[in-house]
Amino acid sequence: MTQPSISRFPVPPAGELPPDLAERFADVQERSGFLPNIFAALAWRPDEARAFFAMHDALMDKETPGLSKGERELIVVATSAANDCLYCVVAHGAVARIRTRDPYLADQVAVDWRKAPLSPRMHAVLAVATRLAADPAAVTQQDLADLAGHGLTEDDVWDVGAITSFFALSNRLAHFAAIAPNPEFYLMGRIPRSAEGTDKQDPR
Amino acid sequence: MTQPSISRFPVPPAGELPPDLAERFADVQERSGFLPNIFAALAWRPDEARAFFAMHDALMDKETPGLSKGERELIVVATSAANDCLYCVVAHGAVARIRTRDPYLADQVAVDWRKAPLSPRMHAVLAVATRLAADPAAVTQQDLADLAGHGLTEDDVWDVGAITSFFALSNRLAHFAAIAPNPEFYLMGRIPRSAEGTDKQDPR
Amino acid sequence: MTQPSISRFPVPPAGELPPDLAERFADVQERSGFLPNIFAALAWRPDEARAFFAMHDALMDKETPGLSKGERELIVVATSAANDCLYCVVAHGAVARIRTRDPYLADQVAVDWRKAPLSPRMHAVLAVATRLAADPAAVTQQDLADLAGHGLTEDDVWDVGAITSFFALSNRLAHFAAIAPNPEFYLMGRIPRSAEGTDKQDPR
Amino acid sequence: MTQPSISRFPVPPAGELPPDLAERFADVQERSGFLPNIFAALAWRPDEARAFFAMHDALMDKETPGLSKGERELIVVATSAANDCLYCVVAHGAVARIRTRDPYLADQVAVDWRKAPLSPRMHAVLAVATRLAADPAAVTQQDLADLAGHGLTEDDVWDVGAITSFFALSNRLAHFAAIAPNPEFYLMGRIPRSAEGTDKQDPR
Amino acid sequence: MTQPSISRFPVPPAGELPPDLAERFADVQERSGFLPNIFAALAWRPDEARAFFAMHDALMDKETPGLSKGERELIVVATSAANDCLYCVVAHGAVARIRTRDPYLADQVAVDWRKAPLSPRMHAVLAVATRLAADPAAVTQQDLADLAGHGLTEDDVWDVGAITSFFALSNRLAHFAAIAPNPEFYLMGRIPRSAEGTDKQDPR
Amino acid sequence: MTQPSISRFPVPPAGELPPDLAERFADVQERSGFLPNIFAALAWRPDEARAFFAMHDALMDKETPGLSKGERELIVVATSAANDCLYCVVAHGAVARIRTRDPYLADQVAVDWRKAPLSPRMHAVLAVATRLAADPAAVTQQDLADLAGHGLTEDDVWDVGAITSFFALSNRLAHFAAIAPNPEFYLMGRIPRSAEGTDKQDPR
Repeated sequence: MTQPSISRFPVPPAGELPPDLAERFADVQERSGFLPNIFAALAWRPDEARAFFAMHDALMDKETPGLSKGERELIVVATSAANDCLYCVVAHGAVARIRTRDPYLADQVAVDWRKAPLSPRMHAVLAVATRLAADPAAVTQQDLADLAGHGLTEDDVWDVGAITSFFALSNRLAHFAAIAPNPEFYLMGRIPRSAEGTDKQDPR
Repeated sequence: MTQPSISRFPVPPAGELPPDLAERFADVQERSGFLPNIFAALAWRPDEARAFFAMHDALMDKETPGLSKGERELIVVATSAANDCLYCVVAHGAVARIRTRDPYLADQVAVDWRKAPLSPRMHAVLAVATRLAADPAAVTQQDLADLAGHGLTEDDVWDVGAITSFFALSNRLAHFAAIAPNPEFYLMGRIPRSAEGTDKQDPR
Repeated sequence: MTQPSISRFPVPPAGELPPDLAERFADVQERSGFLPNIFAALAWRPDEARAFFAMHDALMDKETPGLSKGERELIVVATSAANDCLYCVVAHGAVARIRTRDPYLADQVAVDWRKAPLSPRMHAVLAVATRLAADPAAVTQQDLADLAGHGLTEDDVWDVGAITSFFALSNRLAHFAAIAPNPEFYLMGRIPRSAEGTDKQDPR
Repeated sequence: MTQPSISRFPVPPAGELPPDLAERFADVQERSGFLPNIFAALAWRPDEARAFFAMHDALMDKETPGLSKGERELIVVATSAANDCLYCVVAHGAVARIRTRDPYLADQVAVDWRKAPLSPRMHAVLAVATRLAADPAAVTQQDLADLAGHGLTEDDVWDVGAITSFFALSNRLAHFAAIAPNPEFYLMGRIPRSAEGTDKQDPR
Repeated sequence: MTQPSISRFPVPPAGELPPDLAERFADVQERSGFLPNIFAALAWRPDEARAFFAMHDALMDKETPGLSKGERELIVVATSAANDCLYCVVAHGAVARIRTRDPYLADQVAVDWRKAPLSPRMHAVLAVATRLAADPAAVTQQDLADLAGHGLTEDDVWDVGAITSFFALSNRLAHFAAIAPNPEFYLMGRIPRSAEGTDKQDPR
Repeated sequence: MTQPSISRFPVPPAGELPPDLAERFADVQERSGFLPNIFAALAWRPDEARAFFAMHDALMDKETPGLSKGERELIVVATSAANDCLYCVVAHGAVARIRTRDPYLADQVAVDWRKAPLSPRMHAVLAVATRLAADPAAVTQQDLADLAGHGLTEDDVWDVGAITSFFALSNRLAHFAAIAPNPEFYLMGRIPRSAEGTDKQDPR
């Protein structure tokens, strides 16, 4: 049960963080009960960390009729699985379990989204997202029109593309630095009865 | 939390099984507390089911210094993940967690075996196994010699090839019939304190 | 004209085989005039050999209106060629020539099944079979429905999937052990006038 | 000579931009003589635009002995070409020509970096970067060590990974929104005598 | 600004060429102002050079309503880019700019022909050509019929296939011998006002 | 036993051929006993046909210590099999059987050249040739040096590249026009005792 280390690059001690990051990290740790390793791994590059979390929040902390918070997490899970990214599959799988209140769906989407019990709308969303992740030149105007045909607004359609694009970045940084998921993520949201209690958690 | 159905093909009621399969299935159900769906899904083809379980047991119920039962399950997890096979990743991930007594390693191997905290021996085993799974013509005599160099006997080396080959079959049948993993598998072996209690379970 | 050896693993002498395998092997040798190397190569693992041949016979020794014996062999040829498996392409190519009574079709299917002179039904069968062989997650419920639309029964459809799955195993074992086809297979069924005379042969 | 439109998504008029973006865009336009389309295309999402340009500048506006500004642009060109991204190949190809003062190298890197006349250090950099772009799970600790062996500092090594990751995002957004490069980019930096005069330009 | 050498194989001095090649080369040099490196690189194999240029001219020096000279060059650019062939992308990109009188289109086609501003006819042509270049067994009779449906004659359809096939050869020879494009090609046809003046140039 | 037609394009009657082609075709037919379909299929384009056969003969009708005629045919078989080209695998497989006087080797090379019983020299030749066929940008100067290290002259090395390149063309034309191999090729050179008698045949 050896855990891999947090990153291949330096991880600054909490006491040496710039004040704004220190405050943000403390806040996350309090809400989640632990500090997700992506925070620790990016901290040595404060400007990149700030931009990374700003873009993350702009795309993920959003609930629309066409794309709920849980569904946004499923886009992350499906595309990160296509990139074999352990950190993102495990951490965002946990968040997806909590937000969809379904202990099975994140694993189903991670391994084989095409047979997962999804709505036709989410099936179309994941088809376009995984195509953009793996073969971006193959995405066509028709793909975007199909998403609109399933009821996504223009903003939702952009979000499908932008979430996938952001995690193309995130997956590669996590691979490059070998960022390991915190052990806490593996079990989170798997035990149905405690799902409500953990609903306030939304670490990444 | 809709569960996909057991199979795209007929699933005979327990009362209509041939006596030998009925006895075997009852035995598995008693040991595991539930009947893994692969049994139910193969039952309509009794001859194939018998051959399938016979070959499975010949390869998997075996503990050698070069390849423990838990390590055999990790070969299944790594190669089944390469094939995006939900049933095998989830069911054998559960068995791997129980047999390795590690609640994290199966997920680490499923998503990115190359960075998983494995011995050099198991790293070499999974390198050859995933190559055989994905690009069988690329496996060379040197690959087999490398495994022997890590202490695997000739029998162990064969088992690496045969387990991978058997799950190449199993993964494809599971995809073709859309065999869904039982919900019980998802949580099994994830809670450290109960690991000992569930150690007797070894369903697939 | 050096022939590669039978296997990278031990090949037990005929006199040391378990009685049931000895009897089966003698029977095959008598019918075919030689013992196909797959028998010799699997013999050192009697339990696996028994399961292997039992599953083979359950799937291949079967003639239905939707899938003749010769057509089953063509599934083997097409999917084994996709896996670059010399043993299966050459041995089952020979059987396919004999069973289809066509000296050309097996080679046409092995190299480019898409342009081979096949019925629309067999073209659909090979499209699904080669997809399952190469990219199993991409096979959909619609693929199975298409086969039914060409007149295959539910049993025939399963057989398409199960034959492909079984030879996914067989191709990988043959690659791993470097099992060479017997020289006899290369010419078998190629000379039209003797086709009837060899019609009784059906080795693998 | 029809030019494709700027984006598939709304492009707000300059007069409707938030003040900070309006100021930034005016500054870029003054320095470059035109506003690169990526600015116009991201403007409808101000928070994402701010994060995007902040991360860009943190990674690209940096000159170190191990990785010059021009070499950073070549990483962008090589990985964006691997993703078939017209905007990034053309716009960053232009910047690369200006910063390397070489009118040929950017095209050589875009089409076939492996034969481009590069130093062994830059050859190693592009080998790792294009691997991370196309197959991120295949990047190993040894790859990072190789870069250090060519004299890159720990910061430089991170930058190779982070630049590649950032343009994995950028390439996908550009494909998704079909962002077209401005016509000005195509010729920029190609005429040797004017290279000095345009050296002040560094739009994206 | 180091230029790679002309070829990995011997380049005979102009004075040692067989008379017919010497005359042809002198003619090309006079028309273009320089001798494209492909001529120099093939010269050591006069029979192959003669056949190569004869086939080139039979396919490329031809203007039909269904396939203009400029459009033929775009087929070369798109398929050579799919093969990462620097010589052909740069040299034929230059010729394409001159013949289409468009300074942008060749680069657009080289990097991402699917989004390039092309007619539906040329989009269909490049779809078939790039498929034939990358996955020739996947081209079907329906693909050829689609081209006819866009108004190509039977001769034009053949030319699409033959041009793509010829440059499959040419791209591989250029890679194998590492044939570098002449520096002159990079800028040719990029400056709109001089396009007419250079219209007489059509080197390869 | 339906045979596919000769070509998807017009096949001119023998009486309408230009005199030089008519003479050449008659000569081939007399030597081989039949006219290989590639001749018939190219005849409607006499200039391309002349160039095609001229380049073929310059590369294939050559026997050197480093690369015999039979070995040149094996390059064709291996690379054409990588392209799934039925015409070239069947026709050149026949010629290879005759020229190597081995009834098995062509099939072994076509399906899995890596395990075929070849000399280290020919193994190296086919490794480079199949790389050039499938992924031309991946061929390096080191690959060429390796061939020289196995005793190939500079001319032989070029021939490896040029033969592979020429059949990249040939395979694609054969796919595009769906050129079918003549039935005679399938059996040719398979029956050991008649090998001497057919040694004079060398059609393509």
